[in-house]
Amino acid sequence: MSMNISATMKAAVMTEPRRIVTEERPIPELNDDEVLVKVMAVGVCGSDVHYYEHGRIGDAAVEYPMILGHECAGEVVAAGKSVSRVSPGDRVAIEPQTTCGRCPACKSGKYNLCPEVVFFATPPIDGAFAQYVKAREDFLFPIPDHLSYEEASLVEPFSVGIHAANRTGLKPGNTVAIMGMGPVGLLAVVAAKAYGASRIYVTDLEPVRLEAAKKLGATHAINVREQDAVETIKTLNGGLGVDVAWETAGNPKALQSALLSLRRGGKLAIVGLPIQAEIPLNVHFMTNHEVDIYGVFRYADTYPAGIEILASGIADVNSLITDRYPLERTQEAMDRALHNKSGSLKVIVYPNG
Amino acid sequence: MSMNISATMKAAVMTEPRRIVTEERPIPELNDDEVLVKVMAVGVCGSDVHYYEHGRIGDAAVEYPMILGHECAGEVVAAGKSVSRVSPGDRVAIEPQTTCGRCPACKSGKYNLCPEVVFFATPPIDGAFAQYVKAREDFLFPIPDHLSYEEASLVEPFSVGIHAANRTGLKPGNTVAIMGMGPVGLLAVVAAKAYGASRIYVTDLEPVRLEAAKKLGATHAINVREQDAVETIKTLNGGLGVDVAWETAGNPKALQSALLSLRRGGKLAIVGLPIQAEIPLNVHFMTNHEVDIYGVFRYADTYPAGIEILASGIADVNSLITDRYPLERTQEAMDRALHNKSGSLKVIVYPNG
Amino acid sequence: MSMNISATMKAAVMTEPRRIVTEERPIPELNDDEVLVKVMAVGVCGSDVHYYEHGRIGDAAVEYPMILGHECAGEVVAAGKSVSRVSPGDRVAIEPQTTCGRCPACKSGKYNLCPEVVFFATPPIDGAFAQYVKAREDFLFPIPDHLSYEEASLVEPFSVGIHAANRTGLKPGNTVAIMGMGPVGLLAVVAAKAYGASRIYVTDLEPVRLEAAKKLGATHAINVREQDAVETIKTLNGGLGVDVAWETAGNPKALQSALLSLRRGGKLAIVGLPIQAEIPLNVHFMTNHEVDIYGVFRYADTYPAGIEILASGIADVNSLITDRYPLERTQEAMDRALHNKSGSLKVIVYPNG
Amino acid sequence: MSMNISATMKAAVMTEPRRIVTEERPIPELNDDEVLVKVMAVGVCGSDVHYYEHGRIGDAAVEYPMILGHECAGEVVAAGKSVSRVSPGDRVAIEPQTTCGRCPACKSGKYNLCPEVVFFATPPIDGAFAQYVKAREDFLFPIPDHLSYEEASLVEPFSVGIHAANRTGLKPGNTVAIMGMGPVGLLAVVAAKAYGASRIYVTDLEPVRLEAAKKLGATHAINVREQDAVETIKTLNGGLGVDVAWETAGNPKALQSALLSLRRGGKLAIVGLPIQAEIPLNVHFMTNHEVDIYGVFRYADTYPAGIEILASGIADVNSLITDRYPLERTQEAMDRALHNKSGSLKVIVYPNG
Repeated sequence: MSMNISATMKAAVMTEPRRIVTEERPIPELNDDEVLVKVMAVGVCGSDVHYYEHGRIGDAAVEYPMILGHECAGEVVAAGKSVSRVSPGDRVAIEPQTTCGRCPACKSGKYNLCPEVVFFATPPIDGAFAQYVKAREDFLFPIPDHLSYEEASLVEPFSVGIHAANRTGLKPGNTVAIMGMGPVGLLAVVAAKAYGASRIYVTDLEPVRLEAAKKLGATHAINVREQDAVETIKTLNGGLGVDVAWETAGNPKALQSALLSLRRGGKLAIVGLPIQAEIPLNVHFMTNHEVDIYGVFRYADTYPAGIEILASGIADVNSLITDRYPLERTQEAMDRALHNKSGSLKVIVYPNG
Repeated sequence: MSMNISATMKAAVMTEPRRIVTEERPIPELNDDEVLVKVMAVGVCGSDVHYYEHGRIGDAAVEYPMILGHECAGEVVAAGKSVSRVSPGDRVAIEPQTTCGRCPACKSGKYNLCPEVVFFATPPIDGAFAQYVKAREDFLFPIPDHLSYEEASLVEPFSVGIHAANRTGLKPGNTVAIMGMGPVGLLAVVAAKAYGASRIYVTDLEPVRLEAAKKLGATHAINVREQDAVETIKTLNGGLGVDVAWETAGNPKALQSALLSLRRGGKLAIVGLPIQAEIPLNVHFMTNHEVDIYGVFRYADTYPAGIEILASGIADVNSLITDRYPLERTQEAMDRALHNKSGSLKVIVYPNG
Repeated sequence: MSMNISATMKAAVMTEPRRIVTEERPIPELNDDEVLVKVMAVGVCGSDVHYYEHGRIGDAAVEYPMILGHECAGEVVAAGKSVSRVSPGDRVAIEPQTTCGRCPACKSGKYNLCPEVVFFATPPIDGAFAQYVKAREDFLFPIPDHLSYEEASLVEPFSVGIHAANRTGLKPGNTVAIMGMGPVGLLAVVAAKAYGASRIYVTDLEPVRLEAAKKLGATHAINVREQDAVETIKTLNGGLGVDVAWETAGNPKALQSALLSLRRGGKLAIVGLPIQAEIPLNVHFMTNHEVDIYGVFRYADTYPAGIEILASGIADVNSLITDRYPLERTQEAMDRALHNKSGSLKVIVYPNG
Repeated sequence: MSMNISATMKAAVMTEPRRIVTEERPIPELNDDEVLVKVMAVGVCGSDVHYYEHGRIGDAAVEYPMILGHECAGEVVAAGKSVSRVSPGDRVAIEPQTTCGRCPACKSGKYNLCPEVVFFATPPIDGAFAQYVKAREDFLFPIPDHLSYEEASLVEPFSVGIHAANRTGLKPGNTVAIMGMGPVGLLAVVAAKAYGASRIYVTDLEPVRLEAAKKLGATHAINVREQDAVETIKTLNGGLGVDVAWETAGNPKALQSALLSLRRGGKLAIVGLPIQAEIPLNVHFMTNHEVDIYGVFRYADTYPAGIEILASGIADVNSLITDRYPLERTQEAMDRALHNKSGSLKVIVYPNG
């Protein structure tokens, strides 16, 4: 490890619900296979906001003090002695997890299901609202010069859409319905476009989000305040259900609609997490239409494709970034994301100015 | 067509709910690609019983008079002039459907989802409780001499288990939970064994059915009157969920248990049809465990494997056949199946003695 | 069937090798499920040229007189009485085959392997160099107004690339090498782009074809007269083999290079047909790199996606069309395709002016 | 680590081609995640014999002195401090490799393609002809009491057959041809049976091996000295090619036959390594029959299933074990395997008596 930086850094630390303060923290020490990254951009995720507001998500309770943030990119500044894949100076997107590589899940290629995973900003693990983070070298992915750090931070939520596309086998010519146009849903539109969907139907309650979706590639936007999702999709789709549907809203009605919007043999990915665990779902439809339903838990092996797609310029994802804050104003960033749901899409924090 | 048989036949005709009478009917006339089969054995399916009792299943209402029965095997007695795959004298299992071969479902290999399918004993189509039926030649499958007609008639319900195995990718070494030990569930046990499952956990309320399951290959039988299915399966399975689960009971609780019995990355097939369409299902579990859920609607391309497996002697499926009736007593056969749910497994009708 | 057209039509008939004459022929009569199409554009395929030059391809010998041509599109002018999917006036692409829908291949979704297939311009079946052809309704696909008939005729050779993409599971972020930039290879570049390939390496001997490939989406063009394909691809690809390779040239060396250009775990599709049947292939590489190799025989279920992709404007495929002839000059069209291999890409014949 | 054993052990060390001597060696020291296993049985593999005879396999040259042997099972005697999956006293099969868990191959579930793999008895890594070996805990798999150590050592060559079955998607009702009835081929017969193959055609030159195959589950044995493999298989198989073929002989003619024995749409796994790298293969057949060809390199994620299958008693694999030697006579064991190819099947060395 060869770095010449001060021994401490600034971090935005959550000390209680709805309270984040800037503290001086030790810069992480590196194991031989770890890399220190100077964090240049961190997106605020809905899960960050949920922890910020409630101090917990389901059974996962914050252990204070804790650092939130997991959608991040930055510059490599130091590397452990066995590191060979990246070097100081590299601009990288950070896949915010470390998996064991040895359990049956990891060995079968589903490392997102590793029971020993360490994931940024999932209690009790600290996240990326800090000037520096460390990561194991195999979870860092160099980005091309023309991809900005903000864009690279979007690879994280974009990965969920890519994973949904992989899970549901989306391919060119398919029609797809995507429920919920929050940041994950909006980036899922980009994934659907990259995978060649010929028609992308999107739903939301907020006109601003539906407009954003159309800019990113949605072919038909449906405001579910005004129109029935299933009926409208089928009418627009020549009377047929869609090949593929992804539910990203975490809304029971949206999930039910996503299912019922499928054609026979269609495929549904469940991405969004509703508040209640149990949702009534139409089992007659599932069997009669012989659908496939795929749970989506984070993602695995999506970063290389995610970077390639965003770097290709297939969609102007910068249009998603609506708000920007320095590290010292992370609490404001969280409040913005919390209170401006109809206006803000992606809020970015810049830990190093 | 070269046959020398009388122009009429006996058929067991449903004239109103709970009433089946024997009538003389014309023997079906053949198109060039059709085959006349002398029906030697017909199994009574739960759907037959449901039509018999209620006159309908959901929106599908019987149009009286109608002939029930679709689990059948027999002997080829005549063939249309373009028929080349079977000849008079052949002993055959009958796949009781005819599909169009031209729609997108058929062309993609999912012919069970053909919207133009004609299926035996699905209103308004007559079924196999008759001395003769006709079928298109490509839905007839020769059976070896040592496979009885009764056994061959079981290929139909067995096909559902094979299709579930194919849908969920069951392979040697996998652990599987099968909910519901009616005939479909019991034959699914045989499918699980044929596909190499190392552990087969089964559930039911009836001890006689659980015993039957163990004879057919179940390694662990759980009476859900006495034990919690999910907890018991996990305890027996070393604390882990199973790789694969199939719900065949059409019971909401069984479906919920089937889902929750899965390991992370596990796969669920929904075979049984519950009375109510909407069932509350744990969506948090679906996403957190990233499960795959597959609807199962009938089956496609299962008969050759089904015949091979049953002919291999992997399990004594004759033990499933508990009751036997001649055609004239079809109404009694239906009543038996309807009223003796804890005792009768498979009731067989013999249209030709 | 309601048509008001003369009882005969003009057709370009091959009477011996290298001789095609225009003859008056009866307009095809329709079965109930068939459709009469006024042929508006027919592309000349390499197989047409091969039959034209040699009178045979391997064991398939032309039975004179015979009509060549199978890459075609046109306007529906009449329909058998059971036809419901298309109507007179519809502009359609014609998938030039009719399959049985009943054999194991058809029933499993691989209808391109149907042993009873009838394929345009494959002896002894007549093809599309005629004013009218008939087709079964399920092999006709309406095209949008902004897709020209010439473009629609390209869906046929494009289908091969789509099928190769499906067979090799190409997805966004993958790198691909495509050997041979004849029309099939060039359209395969468009398929690779539509499926999201991040890097598309192409090879050929002719600069004009390599230039055409770059216009259609190839990211790197390699002239194998000047550079070693495998070495160059690996150098350009960061020292690594590619994820996917497609051989379209029918050239032994190109096939060997396609194989050796793969990374471990890579996937190869063999599209091109070399003159000799047996080609020496590196089996040590196949096992050590644990590659998948997929034969490609025509295509199945590609037309809807092919039309969607070409209609999306993803690539200017009109740039492939270099030569145009009326029906009466079909022999000239064939000679052009035969003798101008370095200059002509796709030659189109217009049977109706 | 808590063990009470002497600091040295006996090992059978290869010092030059065809010379193996017993030496005293230090017992391996353990890292925290490693386990010390007392080796109870080691099978002699063809690759061991090849290294013994020639000192190299292709580019892989033995660095003397080196210990051969990689098909092994034993008893856990000590464990590093972070080990939790196994405990001293456990009887285990040893998967003889350690992979990095971090490269793209590992992360995608194809850890057998890990470029940083350390594999027993692959130069310069020592193998298992020794009283003790160490392994990372995640490559040890407990075996049931009724599975002997000899049988457990067979899980290694058996894994190749399982991997071939997984690669080719073998499932109940399929027909399969297996070329070459050496130990890998013979165990592949067991894999084919476990995966439900309805017909298993096997080929070899040696009657004793063909007999052994029939005992293990082959349904038809073909001596290729006397009969043409392809012709005989097709005749026996009702005129049709087989669904799946596996070449395990490493023989060019056997590989060519395996390919040509397939039906259209059939799948071939290449397991055996021929001496020469390039083999002429029929590319016309590959495309016309649209076959899939899968290279097989070792195996991944096969041990749990392999143990389950062998423990199920599906086949008497003890019949494969023809010769037994103590560690001190390892050279004799190798000579036996080398010189008695027509008589010996599997030779086992017992490092601890």
